[in-house]
Formats: sequence, structure tokens, C-alpha cells
Amino acid sequence: MKALHFKNNKLDLKELNNPKPQLGEALIRVLYSSICNTDIEIVKGYMNFEGIIGHEFVGIVEECEDKKWLGKRIVGEINCGCNECDFCKKNLARHCSNRTVLGILGRDGAHAQYLTLPLSNLLFVPEEVENKNAVFVEPLAAALEIAEQIHIQPGIKAAVIGDGKLGQLISLVLNLYSVDLLTIGKYREKLELLKKQGIQTAEFKNIKASPQDIVVECSGAPEGLMLANSLLKPRGTLVLKSTYHGDFPFNPAIWVINEITLVGSRCGPFEPAIQLLKKKSIDPSYLISDVIPAKNALEAFDLAQQKGQLKILLDWQKI
Amino acid sequence: MKALHFKNNKLDLKELNNPKPQLGEALIRVLYSSICNTDIEIVKGYMNFEGIIGHEFVGIVEECEDKKWLGKRIVGEINCGCNECDFCKKNLARHCSNRTVLGILGRDGAHAQYLTLPLSNLLFVPEEVENKNAVFVEPLAAALEIAEQIHIQPGIKAAVIGDGKLGQLISLVLNLYSVDLLTIGKYREKLELLKKQGIQTAEFKNIKASPQDIVVECSGAPEGLMLANSLLKPRGTLVLKSTYHGDFPFNPAIWVINEITLVGSRCGPFEPAIQLLKKKSIDPSYLISDVIPAKNALEAFDLAQQKGQLKILLDWQKI
Repeated sequence: MKALHFKNNKLDLKELNNPKPQLGEALIRVLYSSICNTDIEIVKGYMNFEGIIGHEFVGIVEECEDKKWLGKRIVGEINCGCNECDFCKKNLARHCSNRTVLGILGRDGAHAQYLTLPLSNLLFVPEEVENKNAVFVEPLAAALEIAEQIHIQPGIKAAVIGDGKLGQLISLVLNLYSVDLLTIGKYREKLELLKKQGIQTAEFKNIKASPQDIVVECSGAPEGLMLANSLLKPRGTLVLKSTYHGDFPFNPAIWVINEITLVGSRCGPFEPAIQLLKKKSIDPSYLISDVIPAKNALEAFDLAQQKGQLKILLDWQKI
Repeated sequence: MKALHFKNNKLDLKELNNPKPQLGEALIRVLYSSICNTDIEIVKGYMNFEGIIGHEFVGIVEECEDKKWLGKRIVGEINCGCNECDFCKKNLARHCSNRTVLGILGRDGAHAQYLTLPLSNLLFVPEEVENKNAVFVEPLAAALEIAEQIHIQPGIKAAVIGDGKLGQLISLVLNLYSVDLLTIGKYREKLELLKKQGIQTAEFKNIKASPQDIVVECSGAPEGLMLANSLLKPRGTLVLKSTYHGDFPFNPAIWVINEITLVGSRCGPFEPAIQLLKKKSIDPSYLISDVIPAKNALEAFDLAQQKGQLKILLDWQKI
């Protein structure tokens, strides 16, 4: 099979052996994968990962022990736990200390013709959700994670810092929760897309906003964190989605003085994300900048890193 | 009156006019004040404060409109709000954006023979609480603030980083909440004091501890924050009490990956702190290193900055 493989600081579209499913795992033929900022970070050295990158996908189950899955269209939770620790027992494999993570940690990923995942990680994709929207289940789940972690009361003032893919999905989710929402970004074209979704926006420069109850920082830049601090009410909540490159100078005194609660937020629950897509409460298709044949995956990866790009999908039926 | 006054980077024991209470305020004769680390930080430049320092005290009301307070022994909430904003209406004057703070922000403080505070800030000291314990109401309230902010479930694993005055009071409070407690510090003598209170301790160097549900960082040093991060379970809670000197290099990625909740924590509720002292649930008197006549206040302030010192009280009847 062909796969997008990262090793020795080099990304290649390689010919590799098909993966062999282990006991309890399924072999999945990938229909579409999509390029996430985390993929781009990994190629810059994040997580020291080597192997097939990619973790956002929709595919068809081709081999497994349980026949109910065979031939079915699925998406897959990306964290694979030990099934034995306290976190796994609480259905929180995403915090299992022995976990592997699809295309991120100790497990080959989804930018490939085939991948394997435990059957317990799979979820059926309802027919109402088309393939190109199904690849958004993983990042949409990450957006929903915020609502799993904190109480989002109707009518509160909430700001999202970041107009990229994740910032857009988080804005769409918070917009469902009846908050007084403002999304702050640097790219006029991306903010225009949010405006079309009925979301109030502001440019990062010279931002003037009244104090916020909740600020979600997903800009990926330390200056986004500084802006978040300046926007929060005392006793406000800062949801941190960004992982930054390396250390930067910082003093958390403002969090103590204003008794800020900071909530680190990563992966989220898949099933509610699938339901949002099924019900058409959220339609992320406007975020697709391009769908590119997987045979041009390297060019697609370059394109995804250019300014102004949103979601780039790889079509693994065109390889 | 005499007062410990800070101006132009210089601390002096000065002769000043007695303060004049404004409408709704009381004139209070200070019996004892105590030296807090915040006082020491202010003299190093924290908050850019100039005026009479000090905010921990017990005193007698000498002048006010409401006769019920006259001659009574009181302690006083240190944050003075506008009484009109949303925070003040929720009894959270400590987050009023127009607040003054006794000896810290825009209001002369407690290391003086006399001070003024609004009557609404005063609380009677029950006869069961002696003067030298009453000065601990303010820092004990700051320790109790943790229990106001987060849910402390019995049996959870909790660590306190810092064996100073605040670390000791926080340890005493958490010990009441039936947690599996470990206090980590640098000073063997201070850790010994905690052991005598029945609290498990460990030295900062070469610390090995199992993952914690809650870590309270009150060491005042960035290395305390790094240790907190290494001790927390995924989805654990980091209570931040320390305000650090200036910026330091940091990357909060670990909070995102492990979905840590950080809670900044400052001043707390006075009444429950008074009740703990009244019931003798906590007896902080072992923390008093020395009681020094106020006429020697400058020497006392030097002493308070020496290693190994805990609480230094100033006796304002000896001036």
C-alpha cells in the first residue's frame, strides 16, 4: 500500500506492506483522510513521532472477527488504551499512560490506503453523514470536549482566539450553546467564513472587547494566550487548546490575582460529534479548501501549510 | 501614630497623622499585625505600592457610627469594593475592579497603630480566639479559598508544594478534608513542624511520589510549578497560590495533553476561618516564630526575611 511516512525528518509517500490487524483489531481501507495542524507539527518534530502520520479519516472495515463491522463505513477514536487502568475503565483511554495514538504516538496513522484500529475504537458513520464531512468527526469531538469539561451557561460572554480549522469548529459548537460569542482571528477571509455562519468576529489587531466569562485559546501562538489573559473577567475560564512550540517567557501571576481557571483540553467524545453531523446542526463542509488525490499527498501537505488554507482532504481511492 | 511606611524603595518606621475614617468606615487601633510574604514582595516592588504596608491584623474599634462595634475586637477583610459592581453584589469585593486592598493597593495598611476599614469589612473575633491566633484569619481564609473553589473529595491524593507559612496553613486545612496528603518542602525544620501536626512530608530534592489528583503550588518558585506538573495525574487539578517574580520560560503543553485544570487562588472567606480557630480545629500558634515590639518593626521585617523564619508578629502596644 501507499502511505505518507515520516522518518529521519523526512516525509515520503512510500510503498509499504499492508498492516496486519492484531487480535481484536480491524483492517480498515481509508476513503479520505484529512490534514490536521498536529500532522504539520509532527513533521516539525512534535512528539518525536516516526511512522505513518495522520489521524483524521473515514474508511471501510475490510477484515475483522466481528462480522457486524465488515464492509461498514466507520470513523475511529484515535487513542488506544490498555483496557486495564483506571482511565480505560472510565472510558478515558485518551488518558491511559500506556496508550498509543493513531499517527501521533506509537501507532501508524491514517494518511495511508489501510490502517488498523481496535474494534472498540470504531463508530459507524450514519448514512446521513457523507464521507467528506465524516473526516471532521475527530476535530469536532475535540471542540465538543470543551462542553464535556466545563459548564457552558446560556448567555455568558465567550471568545474564541483563532480562526483556523479548530477555531472555526469550536466557534460552531459554542454557537449552538447560546453564548454571546466573539471569534478573534488574523485572517479576514477566515473571519468572513465565520460571519456567514452567523458568528460575530473581530481582528486580532487593536481588539477591543468587553470582559469575557470564557476564552478559548486555539491560535497556536503565545500572543493568543496573552490576549486571552487580557480579555478574561476575574474568575473567568481560559480553555487552552493550543500546544505551543517550545518555551516562552511567561508569568502566571494574573491567573492567581484574578482567580482564573485554566482548563487544558485535547481529544473529545466521538459519538456526540457524529450526532451533530447527522442532525446537520453543524455542517463543516465549508471548511474544505481542497480534496486532492492521495497520489499527490506530498504536494497536498505543502499546500496545507500555506497561509489562508483550511482543511485539505486526501482521496485514497485516487492513488 | 507610628507606622511602617514604604516609599521610594525605602521602608521606614514613621510618625504620621492618625487616619480619618470616611463615611461608613471605622477607626481601628491595631493590637498585633503580622508580616506576610506579600509584604516582603511589596518592598521588592510587587504591586508598585507606596504607603503603610501590612494586611494581617487584629484590633479594637475606636471610632465609628454604629455603636455595636465600639470597643470590640475585630479582624477585617482586606479588599474594599465599590459596592455597586456585579462582583460586589455577589459578595466578591475581592474581585471588584475598583477595589482598594489594605496595605497592597491604594489603601494604607495594618503595620501601624491605627488603620481604617469600612464597617462592612469587619468581623467580630470570638473570645475563644486569642489575639495572636486572630492575626492568622486572613492567611487561613486564603487557604480555605481552595475549598471554596474546587471540590475536595475525601480519599483523593493531594500534595502541597511549599512548607512556608501559607503551605503550612493549606496543609492544615487539607488535612481536615480527609485527603491522602503529602506536603513537599525544602526546610527540614519546617517539615518537622508539619509531621508533628500528623502530616506526611517529603523533601523537594529527589522527590518520588505517586500521581496526585490535586497539587497546591505555594512555594513561590517556578521550580515548584515544574514539580507540580510532574506530580499531577491526567485530568488532575493544579491550585496555583504562588505569584512569581517576573517572567520565566515555560510551555503549558503538558496542561493541554493531560487536560489539567489550573485554578488560580487568592483571598478567601473570613468567617469560616474564624470558626476553625474558634472550634480549635486548627491551632496556628506553632507557626509564630517571634512576637516583636512594634518599636523594633524594621528589625522584625529584616528577621522575617531570614531563612527558616515563619510568622513574625508586631505588638503595636509596645511602640
